[in-house]
Amino acid sequence: MKNISLAHGGGGEEMNELLTKLFKIFDNEILNSNNDAAILGDLALSTDSFVLSPIFLDNEINIGKLCVCGSINDVLMVGAKPKYLSLGLILEEGFEFEKLERILKSIKKECEKCGVILVCGDTKVVPKGKGDEIYINTTALGEIIAKKESKNIKAGLSILLSGDIGRHGASVLIKRNNLEASIKSDCKALDKEVLELLEKNIKVVAMRDATRGGLSAVLNEWAKQSGNDLLIFEEKIVVQDEVLGLCELFGYEPYELANEGTFILCVEKEDELKALEILKKYNKNAAIIGEVLKEQKARVILQNAYGAKRFLESPKGELLPRIC
Amino acid sequence: MKNISLAHGGGGEEMNELLTKLFKIFDNEILNSNNDAAILGDLALSTDSFVLSPIFLDNEINIGKLCVCGSINDVLMVGAKPKYLSLGLILEEGFEFEKLERILKSIKKECEKCGVILVCGDTKVVPKGKGDEIYINTTALGEIIAKKESKNIKAGLSILLSGDIGRHGASVLIKRNNLEASIKSDCKALDKEVLELLEKNIKVVAMRDATRGGLSAVLNEWAKQSGNDLLIFEEKIVVQDEVLGLCELFGYEPYELANEGTFILCVEKEDELKALEILKKYNKNAAIIGEVLKEQKARVILQNAYGAKRFLESPKGELLPRIC
Repeated sequence: MKNISLAHGGGGEEMNELLTKLFKIFDNEILNSNNDAAILGDLALSTDSFVLSPIFLDNEINIGKLCVCGSINDVLMVGAKPKYLSLGLILEEGFEFEKLERILKSIKKECEKCGVILVCGDTKVVPKGKGDEIYINTTALGEIIAKKESKNIKAGLSILLSGDIGRHGASVLIKRNNLEASIKSDCKALDKEVLELLEKNIKVVAMRDATRGGLSAVLNEWAKQSGNDLLIFEEKIVVQDEVLGLCELFGYEPYELANEGTFILCVEKEDELKALEILKKYNKNAAIIGEVLKEQKARVILQNAYGAKRFLESPKGELLPRIC
Repeated sequence: MKNISLAHGGGGEEMNELLTKLFKIFDNEILNSNNDAAILGDLALSTDSFVLSPIFLDNEINIGKLCVCGSINDVLMVGAKPKYLSLGLILEEGFEFEKLERILKSIKKECEKCGVILVCGDTKVVPKGKGDEIYINTTALGEIIAKKESKNIKAGLSILLSGDIGRHGASVLIKRNNLEASIKSDCKALDKEVLELLEKNIKVVAMRDATRGGLSAVLNEWAKQSGNDLLIFEEKIVVQDEVLGLCELFGYEPYELANEGTFILCVEKEDELKALEILKKYNKNAAIIGEVLKEQKARVILQNAYGAKRFLESPKGELLPRIC
């Protein structure tokens, strides 16, 4: 393979390979630590480009809300309070002002809700046919409150999930195929619940939002990084019936579908119930879904209600593209 | 006009209008101060997307070197030392690994030269025909050494230019039209000269690199922001003969052509010679090109060698697109 394929942007194994192969030249401790945001002393910095298609999912959720939530959530995941945001726009010639205005208003609204200030921006225009309406980059800067890093994951920790999964990916699928279904993306900023966990000193060890590659990508990354097996109780993971139906129809795996407002936590066993109580205030589908085992085989083991086990592999191939 | 046109990204009046009209919704002091980088206490943050076409200008200069220099320079312009960089890639399906690798190597080389660490990244892939090989966003974070803001520009200050102008725009023009000419882009990081100015406590009031819209855009912005007339001595501004020739051929104004390693400074009169001496170490074409007048008419006045005067208007219309 000598050329970039859509799979290289999907969040699965191909993307990991690309990053490992090409980005290894930027070898430094901060980048290698592989957190959602770079930890720079007391600061956290995270960047994301957004190429969502279509750009409007419904009246509330669009690429504007998505980019703010996405960047803010990444900073939150390392235990930082998001403070500032930069905005880089790549607009396609012919893009309607009216749409741009709606997107900017969503950005503003979301920033205000989260107390984040948009402090710098940049606008580029590309000729018609060299873009797709609008691409957005946002980079968020936050202040570390209580540093969380996935390198600290170890045996005995409880694994929690903040809500039901797959709704963002499913909602993109619906919109793209003009289907009638009532699935709403989970896209939202996680500032309230994460900051409450931090302020109440819940012993959270690591957090990650389950975006591209979904729950499966995060769990496999954690297993690989820690070297430990992760045991996951399948019946604890909530997936809406409509999402399941859609997955059957299109041949997707709900664990691999993207989320944009759902995160996974590793918590000290003693604090798992306190953490769950907080999470349930924000989403009743939050659950303790598993634990980190002692076995050092770096596998994700799914156990169903009857005790049968199977491995959850890393997402691979052309996952649903352009979901963020 | 209801749609985005190429002129909205050109760095001229249309772009200013778009920004004023649409971005006014993000009304806050930091954004309104209109510096090259946002000043956040002791930190400076700047974001830029790069859509350069073609992506390789010559063996040394490509979109990779450009994005690092561009972001670093913006942070330097507010009197900060660049420290960290984020990298957001939007790759078009089918883009060659080999080209990506060359670009990443340029990025790494330039970061190392400037002592900047690449700390976080993001990769997205868009389908063939929805991008153009590669678009890059870089966001730079720096530490303020001696804050410089264009709002402090006032009558009596000297205006200096760090080198000859128009080479970057001209080199893109040459490459795009397959012309034979020996013009090399001025693309470079300005860290050495700017940090020397700051360390030697030269009384620099404001700095700005003359990128999109060139010298003309910066001077007009400063005139508008300060309200003062600026008097510019035309014979002090060096433009290479090849650049002048190309401008005549294509109908461009050298003052409006983009630079990517050339900046303009407002300096206290008493320090103008000391500043010039430092600048000349890095580029022999550096010059004192004018002064800020008392008249409050916000005009840029060009005076030629014979004393004749004309106004230098803000760039307007479709400037050379996709030069950065």
